[in-house]
Amino acid sequence: MKILVINGPNLDMLGRREPGVYGTGTLESLKQELQDYCAYHEVDVEFFQSSIEGEIVNAINFSDSDGIVLNAGAYTHYSLAIRDAISACGLPVVEVHISNIFDREDFRNKSVISAAAAGLVSGFGFDSYKLAITALLMRNA
Amino acid sequence: MKILVINGPNLDMLGRREPGVYGTGTLESLKQELQDYCAYHEVDVEFFQSSIEGEIVNAINFSDSDGIVLNAGAYTHYSLAIRDAISACGLPVVEVHISNIFDREDFRNKSVISAAAAGLVSGFGFDSYKLAITALLMRNA
Amino acid sequence: MKILVINGPNLDMLGRREPGVYGTGTLESLKQELQDYCAYHEVDVEFFQSSIEGEIVNAINFSDSDGIVLNAGAYTHYSLAIRDAISACGLPVVEVHISNIFDREDFRNKSVISAAAAGLVSGFGFDSYKLAITALLMRNA
Amino acid sequence: MKILVINGPNLDMLGRREPGVYGTGTLESLKQELQDYCAYHEVDVEFFQSSIEGEIVNAINFSDSDGIVLNAGAYTHYSLAIRDAISACGLPVVEVHISNIFDREDFRNKSVISAAAAGLVSGFGFDSYKLAITALLMRNA
Amino acid sequence: MKILVINGPNLDMLGRREPGVYGTGTLESLKQELQDYCAYHEVDVEFFQSSIEGEIVNAINFSDSDGIVLNAGAYTHYSLAIRDAISACGLPVVEVHISNIFDREDFRNKSVISAAAAGLVSGFGFDSYKLAITALLMRNA
Amino acid sequence: MKILVINGPNLDMLGRREPGVYGTGTLESLKQELQDYCAYHEVDVEFFQSSIEGEIVNAINFSDSDGIVLNAGAYTHYSLAIRDAISACGLPVVEVHISNIFDREDFRNKSVISAAAAGLVSGFGFDSYKLAITALLMRNA
Amino acid sequence: MKILVINGPNLDMLGRREPGVYGTGTLESLKQELQDYCAYHEVDVEFFQSSIEGEIVNAINFSDSDGIVLNAGAYTHYSLAIRDAISACGLPVVEVHISNIFDREDFRNKSVISAAAAGLVSGFGFDSYKLAITALLMRNA
Amino acid sequence: MKILVINGPNLDMLGRREPGVYGTGTLESLKQELQDYCAYHEVDVEFFQSSIEGEIVNAINFSDSDGIVLNAGAYTHYSLAIRDAISACGLPVVEVHISNIFDREDFRNKSVISAAAAGLVSGFGFDSYKLAITALLMRNA
Amino acid sequence: MKILVINGPNLDMLGRREPGVYGTGTLESLKQELQDYCAYHEVDVEFFQSSIEGEIVNAINFSDSDGIVLNAGAYTHYSLAIRDAISACGLPVVEVHISNIFDREDFRNKSVISAAAAGLVSGFGFDSYKLAITALLMRNA
Amino acid sequence: MKILVINGPNLDMLGRREPGVYGTGTLESLKQELQDYCAYHEVDVEFFQSSIEGEIVNAINFSDSDGIVLNAGAYTHYSLAIRDAISACGLPVVEVHISNIFDREDFRNKSVISAAAAGLVSGFGFDSYKLAITALLMRNA
Amino acid sequence: MKILVINGPNLDMLGRREPGVYGTGTLESLKQELQDYCAYHEVDVEFFQSSIEGEIVNAINFSDSDGIVLNAGAYTHYSLAIRDAISACGLPVVEVHISNIFDREDFRNKSVISAAAAGLVSGFGFDSYKLAITALLMRNA
Amino acid sequence: MKILVINGPNLDMLGRREPGVYGTGTLESLKQELQDYCAYHEVDVEFFQSSIEGEIVNAINFSDSDGIVLNAGAYTHYSLAIRDAISACGLPVVEVHISNIFDREDFRNKSVISAAAAGLVSGFGFDSYKLAITALLMRNA
Repeated sequence: MKILVINGPNLDMLGRREPGVYGTGTLESLKQELQDYCAYHEVDVEFFQSSIEGEIVNAINFSDSDGIVLNAGAYTHYSLAIRDAISACGLPVVEVHISNIFDREDFRNKSVISAAAAGLVSGFGFDSYKLAITALLMRNA
Repeated sequence: MKILVINGPNLDMLGRREPGVYGTGTLESLKQELQDYCAYHEVDVEFFQSSIEGEIVNAINFSDSDGIVLNAGAYTHYSLAIRDAISACGLPVVEVHISNIFDREDFRNKSVISAAAAGLVSGFGFDSYKLAITALLMRNA
Repeated sequence: MKILVINGPNLDMLGRREPGVYGTGTLESLKQELQDYCAYHEVDVEFFQSSIEGEIVNAINFSDSDGIVLNAGAYTHYSLAIRDAISACGLPVVEVHISNIFDREDFRNKSVISAAAAGLVSGFGFDSYKLAITALLMRNA
Repeated sequence: MKILVINGPNLDMLGRREPGVYGTGTLESLKQELQDYCAYHEVDVEFFQSSIEGEIVNAINFSDSDGIVLNAGAYTHYSLAIRDAISACGLPVVEVHISNIFDREDFRNKSVISAAAAGLVSGFGFDSYKLAITALLMRNA
Repeated sequence: MKILVINGPNLDMLGRREPGVYGTGTLESLKQELQDYCAYHEVDVEFFQSSIEGEIVNAINFSDSDGIVLNAGAYTHYSLAIRDAISACGLPVVEVHISNIFDREDFRNKSVISAAAAGLVSGFGFDSYKLAITALLMRNA
Repeated sequence: MKILVINGPNLDMLGRREPGVYGTGTLESLKQELQDYCAYHEVDVEFFQSSIEGEIVNAINFSDSDGIVLNAGAYTHYSLAIRDAISACGLPVVEVHISNIFDREDFRNKSVISAAAAGLVSGFGFDSYKLAITALLMRNA
Repeated sequence: MKILVINGPNLDMLGRREPGVYGTGTLESLKQELQDYCAYHEVDVEFFQSSIEGEIVNAINFSDSDGIVLNAGAYTHYSLAIRDAISACGLPVVEVHISNIFDREDFRNKSVISAAAAGLVSGFGFDSYKLAITALLMRNA
Repeated sequence: MKILVINGPNLDMLGRREPGVYGTGTLESLKQELQDYCAYHEVDVEFFQSSIEGEIVNAINFSDSDGIVLNAGAYTHYSLAIRDAISACGLPVVEVHISNIFDREDFRNKSVISAAAAGLVSGFGFDSYKLAITALLMRNA
Repeated sequence: MKILVINGPNLDMLGRREPGVYGTGTLESLKQELQDYCAYHEVDVEFFQSSIEGEIVNAINFSDSDGIVLNAGAYTHYSLAIRDAISACGLPVVEVHISNIFDREDFRNKSVISAAAAGLVSGFGFDSYKLAITALLMRNA
Repeated sequence: MKILVINGPNLDMLGRREPGVYGTGTLESLKQELQDYCAYHEVDVEFFQSSIEGEIVNAINFSDSDGIVLNAGAYTHYSLAIRDAISACGLPVVEVHISNIFDREDFRNKSVISAAAAGLVSGFGFDSYKLAITALLMRNA
Repeated sequence: MKILVINGPNLDMLGRREPGVYGTGTLESLKQELQDYCAYHEVDVEFFQSSIEGEIVNAINFSDSDGIVLNAGAYTHYSLAIRDAISACGLPVVEVHISNIFDREDFRNKSVISAAAAGLVSGFGFDSYKLAITALLMRNA
Repeated sequence: MKILVINGPNLDMLGRREPGVYGTGTLESLKQELQDYCAYHEVDVEFFQSSIEGEIVNAINFSDSDGIVLNAGAYTHYSLAIRDAISACGLPVVEVHISNIFDREDFRNKSVISAAAAGLVSGFGFDSYKLAITALLMRNA
């Protein structure tokens, strides 16, 4: 089984950007944590990060994985193009958020991609990603 | 560690109610699955179900557990009393949903309790509960 | 054939509460009228009244009747839990109102349970209940 | 006692139009059913159908009946002219709908004429008309 | 100079319909009053009444008058067709209302035709028509 | 009979301010025109202009006239204090506007004072004032 | 193949009404152009124009054509009766507009009939009709 | 004179729940304070607390007091059932809030019960209750 | 201790204005009642009334009192300038209303100043002022 | 004459993505069909596809064609940048959609680019493109 | 060149009012700073402050300056009277704000005067005024 | 000190695009003007233009400047990704607009990035950029 973890805009700033909200871990440390977690569960994982909406669309559409973990960052709240890609790709896509997006600014309370995703995990820091991977594993079991 | 799993209104109808949406498993089978899952992870679990909003408020407020997994059913969408209980109880509360509430009727797209919860897991069937328990375990680790 | 007539919050105050709106008949006299009406039409009838939302949910879910006549009172306008119970119970549920709810305060113009009900009868005083019973009988004919 | 049954726009298409929603009975068969029902209850009935809003206004305003059963079709949702006619005519007008208008498209959830009508019967197929006639009879009793 | 006075839906019910709101004068007495008023001011007047929206559209479009006084009744609040006719006809059209439409139900607070009209006179009973005629005369002076 | 004509904020700029919208006549010429008009109709008239909302409130509350013609300018759209003064003063107050406020910016389409006024005349240039005076005269006749 | 071209309210004013928006061609010239276009493509065409909503409903419901080209004029924005006729008639109906309705007043940006139509062609002047006819031909091919 | 003080959901958590918002006093200390205050003013007082909406409805409907002081907690913002009970019970009901509900989250800015209450006291901590009792005393004086 | 009582627009009309809503007491009698009440409680009181928004702003900003009781009249519903003054002055300001503003027109249901005030007392007639003074005294105790 | 056909995000997935909505034809087959259609009409055509919003902006701004056919996919509903490009480029741009966007999810009912486009063709499958090309040809004729 | 700097309601409280938002500088120090800045740039400056809306209207309308720098304080958000004065005065008016009004309460995010102003400078503390003066100078250059 | 000037989508069309709104200067001439202005003030300046949202995100996140002047073009109104970049980058970012965005289409009245920016300068043509640079210099002084 192969899982693709996609991180959207500004997530390459993790650890630098508003640590009070997103914690002090960097994107590199997140990737290392997930690598270890996936190795333990004997599943392949690859990573993709881009701040360009259309590149995320393409990454979803042309993925050869068995499931996608997607943190679309701010695009979560308006990218209907990403929503369409989730519907189009035919793969289970789990939406994740590091922070509890429902306890922040009004505009972050609404995700336009949730309806197309397989499910949502939000609010558990980096653990959100691990839970999403677990969800894909459980689904596959 | 002790976890309280609360199920809200109509969830005692599981397996009987709209199986196309909620699956064919009953509340009993859900409890058995979670019992096994918790036994495996060496954590105590207890269950509470009620269709009465105020009883759920009380269950949250007077829980002696270390964390709560809460499927508030339809109350998710209007029970500010439950929201206040989540804030008041001082315990981590993980909101769960069996179905993807964001891919259903408009009124189910909005949870009034998410902002007070520690996090949200939605859309994975009975696995949503297991992922929520895992989230509490990770948090405790 | 057996019909369950459920009256919701404050309807035990009938005759005492705002007679200009609801008339001077009491809950007791309503029950007597419906008893007579059902006897004439040779159908069993039982009554349930509660001001507790969750008890109405349970009454719907665990009814052994062939059809339900439901006046949910103020819960009509926000109880998604009752709406879910109507969907879950598998019985025809006819929503009734004594007054014309569309000719009163704005908040009473919207019923959140109508979409799940078999049909609606509103505005005919106590006759609304009799018409609802007739509707269930016609449906059964 | 004399009752006028008014059918609005497109209802002459009954049986042809979306049978999944409105059933397979035609306007002719509806009239026959109501004729029989009224004969049995010893009440005169006459019928009027038009797709022209102003003709319905006139039919209401110049009716010599003792009560009106009105299915305003799509005009239900925007014809303030018909609403004013209901207020102006001084007769009890019962609004009916064949389908459950609250379980369909959003725009069909709102009737602008209900506030002026004596009452509403919705969702019981052709029986809605019979129940409305019964309501007028009960009112007269 | 020739003026066309158009009365819309239900205004043939004047004197019969809600006298508390519209007064006890009939359409006939209104016409007589205006006839006298116009004779005094040496201007020709003709009258048109219809409850059919499209007939009002036609009356506006094919008028050979020098100005129109229009009470569109309930169509005031939704007839974009009449609004377009006012724009199309090339004549000054003065919108009138007998009652103060801004002191009644919410839906009567908004006129969709005012923007296309030359001006508005509202709230003065039958005098509203006379003031509108005066406005056309002043405009012509 | 004595009539008070009140002009609100910026109306002392008439003739200077946006002549495309308000014409080239000044406040002085308006007063002269109305003086002549009232002299002809044998009615006393006095004038008040202020750009201070509370002074308009006071002018209405302490007027010793028999009727008020009020152009509240921009306060038309938000001054609930002026609305309350209109209700409090016990005099007939006719709201006037030089331009057609319904054919301009959205925020000018809504008057918060109309509901409290006796009536409204809008869109006839300076003639709006004369028509309002006529309305008060007719009312008194 | 036979095509019915329906023109709604005020479209008999073409060439007279706001030429800046609708051009200077008349309804007669439009009909001539379409007659020629249809003759060239060997398809029968007939025309219907009415400013009465219900007559358009009837024209749609009782058409014996193979497809309808419909410019509903202002009714586009509120006639749910026409929408229902489109659904009821069982024929492909192509909605057309001469002007670009999305680049005009807010209220013209929303068509309530588009959802029921086969498709929409808007903004190409009289060519919109020809493209709609072509669309019906392509569909038939 | 006898006064009933009703506390709604989560108010049994006082002193434990968000002391920054509600202070550190417990429900017990509140009751003691009010007991003393009422003793001083020679008025009987009794207390009722419940987190169950319907039990609050019943407490209001079946109270034998001369006036009610009601802190409905979160139900303030959606319980139309409690609103109806306030209207039905025929007693003066004073709505109180410990915190200033207008200076908190948006959803707390709107009380659905205020319109039915005799008056409102909000924002004075435990003193809100004493002021409400004083209001009932003044009313009775 | 010194308390400033500010009355806003139209409140100098008390007793003259809509006695059904505001009672028959005048501003003079209100001042006398409060004078007596304050004398009894041994607190200084001074009064200020103005219908000019900016004068109320100044009265708040330049007060040398220890607390303010403010009935801002209609400005309650839109004066952000007064709201800012309440925040700026550094004194406890208690908002009062004679009538129950939540049981009147929609626009009176929303106060823009409550969020900045120390608390709110509404609906108790002239007693609202006395309760507000008591609130300031309790706060000081 | 040269026409540029632009396809936006996810349209490279045609035939793979939701065939129930978009049909089974691929982007390659669409291009072939249009190539043939343009060859027949003796017009040059070139194609551009990108899922990156800014690349579509650039393609529009730097096109050397005589007209553009644009299917902006999901960007239709929020890309004000593309709207600005359409206004900036000075070329006629025809907006096309394969499906009837007005008969799908709410968010697809609104195009933010229509107001800037020359016209709109929606709902005819691949034929929408051909009709748009025809529209450009007619415009040029 | 002469510039008028207008400060609106509560700005005479600068340095006293919420220093966390507005800084510790007083209105006097602001005037001194701007005096110096203008002296350096060889431009005359005069100052006006009032908390009375109508006085600001008058100051704008009767200014003999060549340009106005306006901080309308809370009136920014609702004073259509000031907006009209800006349009009427014929001078360039630059709107300024000390704080970033878009990063504060919702009601401060909307300025009703911006559309009539020449431009806006917001968020730079006292520098906002200097930048506005510079803008007027550049414009004049 | 080093300043980065970022121009967003379509701004490479300056001078070509709608000169009535944006003037006739090109992006090249803007850069030259700013180059000169910065040289005069002895500050380094560099320029970046892209129509791709994510590239603007990256330019902000990876800038090595001391402050950014950002004209985000149409992205101003919906790019939450750019907003997050502004928050993340830790640099002062001044939002600029050439035209007065508050005096244009409704959708341009709202900036989603203002709340995250240091301040806003809008409406002064190319001078907006110079004022923004000055603001950064003042801030640094």
